[in-house]
Amino acid sequence: MDEHALAELCAYAKKFAQLDAPKIRLLQAIHPLLAPRLDEVTDAFYQHLPTIDKARPFLEGREVSLKATHREWLESLFTSNFDLDYTRHLYKVGDVHVRIRLPVEFMAGGMTIIQGELMQLTSRVFAGQPEPLLHANAAINAATGFSLLVMQESYQSSSMAAELERFLQITGISPTLFKNLAKAYNLKQP
Amino acid sequence: MDEHALAELCAYAKKFAQLDAPKIRLLQAIHPLLAPRLDEVTDAFYQHLPTIDKARPFLEGREVSLKATHREWLESLFTSNFDLDYTRHLYKVGDVHVRIRLPVEFMAGGMTIIQGELMQLTSRVFAGQPEPLLHANAAINAATGFSLLVMQESYQSSSMAAELERFLQITGISPTLFKNLAKAYNLKQP
Repeated sequence: MDEHALAELCAYAKKFAQLDAPKIRLLQAIHPLLAPRLDEVTDAFYQHLPTIDKARPFLEGREVSLKATHREWLESLFTSNFDLDYTRHLYKVGDVHVRIRLPVEFMAGGMTIIQGELMQLTSRVFAGQPEPLLHANAAINAATGFSLLVMQESYQSSSMAAELERFLQITGISPTLFKNLAKAYNLKQP
Repeated sequence: MDEHALAELCAYAKKFAQLDAPKIRLLQAIHPLLAPRLDEVTDAFYQHLPTIDKARPFLEGREVSLKATHREWLESLFTSNFDLDYTRHLYKVGDVHVRIRLPVEFMAGGMTIIQGELMQLTSRVFAGQPEPLLHANAAINAATGFSLLVMQESYQSSSMAAELERFLQITGISPTLFKNLAKAYNLKQP
């Protein structure tokens, strides 16, 4: 994905998920309050995943490195500027998920678990402060929504590209021949 | 999707999103408290969507019927048993989204907006009641997560099927010939 398309995706995902500058500043402001307990979120996430049959093959033997990567990303939710670098990183994650053949619904399912755990955490950290609690939850919802949106756009385009490659391999059609056939076919369409 | 596969998907999505029987009962119990104000959520959703360029073509001239459908689904989050009927319905919605060529990220983006609005609503309805607020938010998170997960599984499988169809149309290959080529190709693989 080129820089222009990436900038467009970043702006679009921010707008969709309502992740604006005040929310990003808030996430960074609450970071010191949440940071000491973010381990709990990653721990809960990796405690739940192995209870799902379909998830186990993706975990076995990789728990330590997966947990470390997850923990790092979780921290970045509260330190990132949600700029092009963050968008590029999440876009790559979506692509990697296709390459390791992770089922698409793992991303939405995973984000649901993470949101649930973060809401538990904020309810303790902001106990007795209903307004700050609401704002923290809204900012977290926007940030996880932004991340999911970017990953899914990339997952979708990568899985379409992988599917085309599979067709071409099965049929023995060359990429150039397919491109020409597609052009001719599209010209025929009304 | 046959009944057996549907039952498996329903159980799997419930487990992943941690949507258990107590959460479903809670959603039904808080329904009377939230129902009078669910219009606000749908209104906010359809106020935000037209501000997104890519969303406008899907809205124009259809706002009234889309809003009605959305409002009905929103109510069902608090009345459903999240059984096979609900799963079947959401599975069809994912399929319809492919047929109208709705970009994949609209589902995650849309659910982010809805979650944000519902959190605003619960913070008012459960003002001064931090524990019930947390439980309500957790149950809503699980229910929207379940719904997103089911829709995305169906979106993914429908978009793969649509891509295969496009490929067969472009190349003029018959479904039977492709099936035989795929079988031969898979036999060749190590």
